Amino acid sequence: MTRLLIAALVGLATALPAAAQFQKPEDAIKYRQSAMAIQSNHLGRVFAMANGRVPFDAKVAAEQIEIVAMINRLQFAAFVEGSDKGNTKAKPEIWTDKDKFAAAVSKSQEDVTKLAAVGKSGNVDQIKAAVGAVAGSCKGCHDVFRN
Amino acid sequence: MTRLLIAALVGLATALPAAAQFQKPEDAIKYRQSAMAIQSNHLGRVFAMANGRVPFDAKVAAEQIEIVAMINRLQFAAFVEGSDKGNTKAKPEIWTDKDKFAAAVSKSQEDVTKLAAVGKSGNVDQIKAAVGAVAGSCKGCHDVFRN
Repeated sequence: MTRLLIAALVGLATALPAAAQFQKPEDAIKYRQSAMAIQSNHLGRVFAMANGRVPFDAKVAAEQIEIVAMINRLQFAAFVEGSDKGNTKAKPEIWTDKDKFAAAVSKSQEDVTKLAAVGKSGNVDQIKAAVGAVAGSCKGCHDVFRN
Repeated sequence: MTRLLIAALVGLATALPAAAQFQKPEDAIKYRQSAMAIQSNHLGRVFAMANGRVPFDAKVAAEQIEIVAMINRLQFAAFVEGSDKGNTKAKPEIWTDKDKFAAAVSKSQEDVTKLAAVGKSGNVDQIKAAVGAVAGSCKGCHDVFRN
């Protein structure tokens, strides 16, 4: 995956230089799985507040969302060329249908960016709507690109 | 692990509310291993610049260091009570010698905080010194508390 393609995938030029680098494909696989695990933990806390399982706390929500946004910004750079084999659920379509994957990545990043914006507002209804959109883009990408 | 003890471990009151929460001990183990993996990747890039293996780039260094600092702030909250068993290299001393572990955590966080401060300066000599200290506190903790 060339630097240009990463740029296309990541979408945000500002996020580019922080992109991780990998010596071996398995490092990239471990990195993206790690990022997903951390993101899932913090997103889970926002989901729990959004659907009323735990009381809504605007400060906690904003902090969790900030972490989600930071991790989301990192993870997609780890879908490097050659990391389709090994201990991964990533489908080959990530690399064979790059435009479609890039669109899914952009959708995820747009939705997380919107969530990050409303996260600071502390408006529970806006956060609920935004977190619902994020859940949708997670699922949308996983349904197509994850085994 | 009580909330108070987490507070003691984390050291920085501001970092507390963002601490992850875990439904099962294995979730905590996976979370801290994930955080270490991501931190290691980005710290590795700073090490490589600090020891001259790759050319020093102040902007890239600052960005990598910012990620390291964010992850470092999260990971120690995952050494929760009951997460000493399972797929982990964590030694029992983390939970049986809590004061010593808390001191190692504080040392790591102090050194990373200093690195984050000089990271913004772009001063290569200061970054080298600070990253050396971080390497030392990583190793110091791993030597004692990791199998």
